[in-house]
Amino acid sequence: MIAPHYRAMLGAKSVIREISEWSTARGKEIGYDNVFDYSLGNPSVPCPDAFTAACKDLLDTMDPVTLHGYTPTLTLPEVRAAVAESLNRRFGMDYTAAHIFMTSGAAGALAHALRCVAVPGQNIVTFAPFFPEYKPYVEGAGLTLRVAPPRVEDFQIDLEALNALVDENTAALLINSPNNPSGVAYSAGTLARLAAWLAAASQRFGHHIFLISDEPYREIAFGGTEIPYPAKFYDDTLTCYSFSKSLSVPGERIGYLAANPRCEGADLIVPICGQISRGIGHNCPSGLFQRAVAACLDQTSDLTVYQTNMELLYAELKRLGFTVNKPDGTFYIFPKALEPDAKEFCRKAMAYDLALVPGDTFGCPGYFRMAYCIGTEKVRRSFAALERFVKAEYGVEPR
Amino acid sequence: MIAPHYRAMLGAKSVIREISEWSTARGKEIGYDNVFDYSLGNPSVPCPDAFTAACKDLLDTMDPVTLHGYTPTLTLPEVRAAVAESLNRRFGMDYTAAHIFMTSGAAGALAHALRCVAVPGQNIVTFAPFFPEYKPYVEGAGLTLRVAPPRVEDFQIDLEALNALVDENTAALLINSPNNPSGVAYSAGTLARLAAWLAAASQRFGHHIFLISDEPYREIAFGGTEIPYPAKFYDDTLTCYSFSKSLSVPGERIGYLAANPRCEGADLIVPICGQISRGIGHNCPSGLFQRAVAACLDQTSDLTVYQTNMELLYAELKRLGFTVNKPDGTFYIFPKALEPDAKEFCRKAMAYDLALVPGDTFGCPGYFRMAYCIGTEKVRRSFAALERFVKAEYGVEPR
Repeated sequence: MIAPHYRAMLGAKSVIREISEWSTARGKEIGYDNVFDYSLGNPSVPCPDAFTAACKDLLDTMDPVTLHGYTPTLTLPEVRAAVAESLNRRFGMDYTAAHIFMTSGAAGALAHALRCVAVPGQNIVTFAPFFPEYKPYVEGAGLTLRVAPPRVEDFQIDLEALNALVDENTAALLINSPNNPSGVAYSAGTLARLAAWLAAASQRFGHHIFLISDEPYREIAFGGTEIPYPAKFYDDTLTCYSFSKSLSVPGERIGYLAANPRCEGADLIVPICGQISRGIGHNCPSGLFQRAVAACLDQTSDLTVYQTNMELLYAELKRLGFTVNKPDGTFYIFPKALEPDAKEFCRKAMAYDLALVPGDTFGCPGYFRMAYCIGTEKVRRSFAALERFVKAEYGVEPR
Repeated sequence: MIAPHYRAMLGAKSVIREISEWSTARGKEIGYDNVFDYSLGNPSVPCPDAFTAACKDLLDTMDPVTLHGYTPTLTLPEVRAAVAESLNRRFGMDYTAAHIFMTSGAAGALAHALRCVAVPGQNIVTFAPFFPEYKPYVEGAGLTLRVAPPRVEDFQIDLEALNALVDENTAALLINSPNNPSGVAYSAGTLARLAAWLAAASQRFGHHIFLISDEPYREIAFGGTEIPYPAKFYDDTLTCYSFSKSLSVPGERIGYLAANPRCEGADLIVPICGQISRGIGHNCPSGLFQRAVAACLDQTSDLTVYQTNMELLYAELKRLGFTVNKPDGTFYIFPKALEPDAKEFCRKAMAYDLALVPGDTFGCPGYFRMAYCIGTEKVRRSFAALERFVKAEYGVEPR
C-alpha cells in the first residue's frame, strides 16, 4: 500500500521550483536570456581544473578495483585525515580523522547529525529566515522543527526569542551561516552569545543541547573576511559541510560531518554515523569523489563572480530605495519587499520578466530572495526591468 | 545528547566484518596470500573499460557546470529512459522513464522502496537465508523484519511457512534472487506460486502486499541461463538494482528502483521516492555516475571468474562430502557444515587459515558461506587446506 504521508507530500509543491519552472516556460516564449531568473541557487561557475584533473588522474592511475571498491563504513581514513588537517590549519581546531565522516553533501551530513543527537519526538530549533528543506530533513528523522522569528534589522540571532522555543525536549539548534536566504553571516559576537546561552540552557535542562552548523556557503565570503567558524565557539557542535558550492559540484553529492573533538561523545559520533547510514540507505559517498575532493581541499572554483554580482545588485537595490542588508557571503540577497505581501510583490515582478522568490517560503514574510548565481551581464541587464517594475507598480523615484 | 538506540548498535559487530578483520590480521602474520579469505562479498574484477572510458569522456567533453550540477529531484530523465528501455528489451517489460528512479546503490533503492509501500509499525517478511543488512534497513524505516525459515533442500520458498508470518500488517515481502548467501535463484515455478499466493493474500487482507525484489547479483548468472525476473510474475513489484557487482563499482553507489507499470500507484512511486529522499538525506546519486552507467547499461565486467571459481569449489566440496546446492549465480556458495554448530565449524577452520562465515548470521544455522570473489589460483590453493581441515577435524575421507 502506498505510504499515505509521503503521498500527501506530493501536493505541496516547492515555491522556489514553481518560480523556476515559470522562468523556464517564459524563456521558451521570449528567450531564456530575456528572463531575469533569480530563482534557483545553482552554482554558475565551473569546478576548478584541479578537480577535473584529480578525477582523471584517479581514473588513469589507480587500480579500478580499489578506486571503485567499497570504502570503509566510516569512509576513507586518508580523506578524513586530510579534511581534519585542513580544518585545523584554517580554523585552529584539533580534529583528527576520528571526528570526520564523509557524506552525500550537506543534506547527507544533516541527515546523520540530526539522528545522531536527537531521538524521535524531540525538537530542533532553527532561525528564520531558513532553508525550507530543513522541515523535511527534520521531520524525516521523526523530529519537530521549531522556528525562531527573524531579526530583520540585521538577520543575526534573537536570543530573547529562544527562551520561548527551547525546552527540555530540544535536542539541537540548527544554524546556517552565511545564511540562505539572507546572505548574512553570524558575527563572532552573535556566536559567542549563542554559545553562552546554549551552555546555560544545557545546564538548565540537564543534557547537552547540540549546535548543528550547516555551512555549504562557507567559502563564498565577501570582502576577504573569514566567516566565523561556529564550532570554535561552542564545544557541542556538529559541522555539516558540502563541496557543492565551493567546488561547483552539487550533483556529485559530496560533503562531510565534523564533530568537535570536545563535544559530548566526540569519539562515538563517527561510529554512530556509520550505524545511521545502514538505516537510511546511503552507505558512504562515492569513493572517486571522496578522493577527488581530498586532492583539492584548499581550492575553490573562481567564486569572484558572486561578489561582483552582489556589489552591483546591492548598490542598485539601494538606489531603488530597498531596505536590504549587505550579504557577507553566499549568492543570495534578501531585500524587503515594497508591499507587505511579498508573494504579491513577486507575482507582480513576473510581468517584468523578473523571477524573485517570496520570503514566506523561508519563514520571513515581507522579504524576497534573489539568487545571483547567474552571469554578471544578465545582472546588469536586469536593472532596467527592476527599475521599470518598481516605478510602475510602486511609484519609486530612484535616487 | 547522543541517540541511545544508535549508541547501543555500536556493541553489535558484524560477524562477517569480524572474520574479515581476522583474515587481515592473520595475513600480516603469514602473508595475506596464505589466508584463504572467503569472508567478504567484494567484487574482485575491474570495471569494464567502457565504464572508465565513459567517465573520462564525460569529464573531457561535457560542460562541467552541467555535468556536476544538481540532477532533477527524480534523477536524470535520459538515464531513467535508458534503464527502462534496457529492462524492456531484456525482460519483456513495459517500463517508461516514469517508473525508474536512480539511487545510491541497492541499499538506497531498498531505503526508498521500504518507505514507499510501508508505514512505521508494519512488517516486512523475508526468507532465510538472507542478507543480514536487511534488519537495519527495515528497522531504520520503523518497520519489523519477519523471517521465514529456510527450505534447506533447495533454498526455494516455503509457502507453507508464509501463512504463519504474513498478516494484516504485512506491507511487503523482500526477496533476493540470486541469493546472498545461497547462490540459488528462485525458479519460474517458485515465482509463479509466490505471485499467486501474494495475490490471494492481498485480497484476503484488503491491501496490496508488495514484492520488493533485491537484485544486485542479477548479472552474475551461471550456465548461460537467464535468472527469472520477479517483476514479470507479480504486478506489485518494486525491483531494486545495483551496478556494484555487474560493473564492479560498489564504492560509487549507483543503482535504481524500477516500479512495475502495473503496480498499485505505479505513476506515484517515483514522485514519492523524490519526497522520501528529502527526509533521508540522499538527494540523487552522483550525476557523473548516473550518466556513466547509462553509457554501458548492457555491459558487465568480465564475470567469468566467478563461474570458474564456483565450478571448482562445488566439485571440491562434493568430493569432500559436503551437502551443498549448486549456485545459479552470485559469488557465494552455502554448504552444510560438518557439525550442527556452524560457528564452531568456522572457528575450527581458522586453524587452517580458512575464513568462512557461519550461516547463523544469515538466519540459517548449520550452514556456512564462502564468498569466492577471489583469484582462481587462490581457490585452487585453498583445497589442500580444506582437505586437511575436514580430514583432521571430522575424519572425512575424500572420494
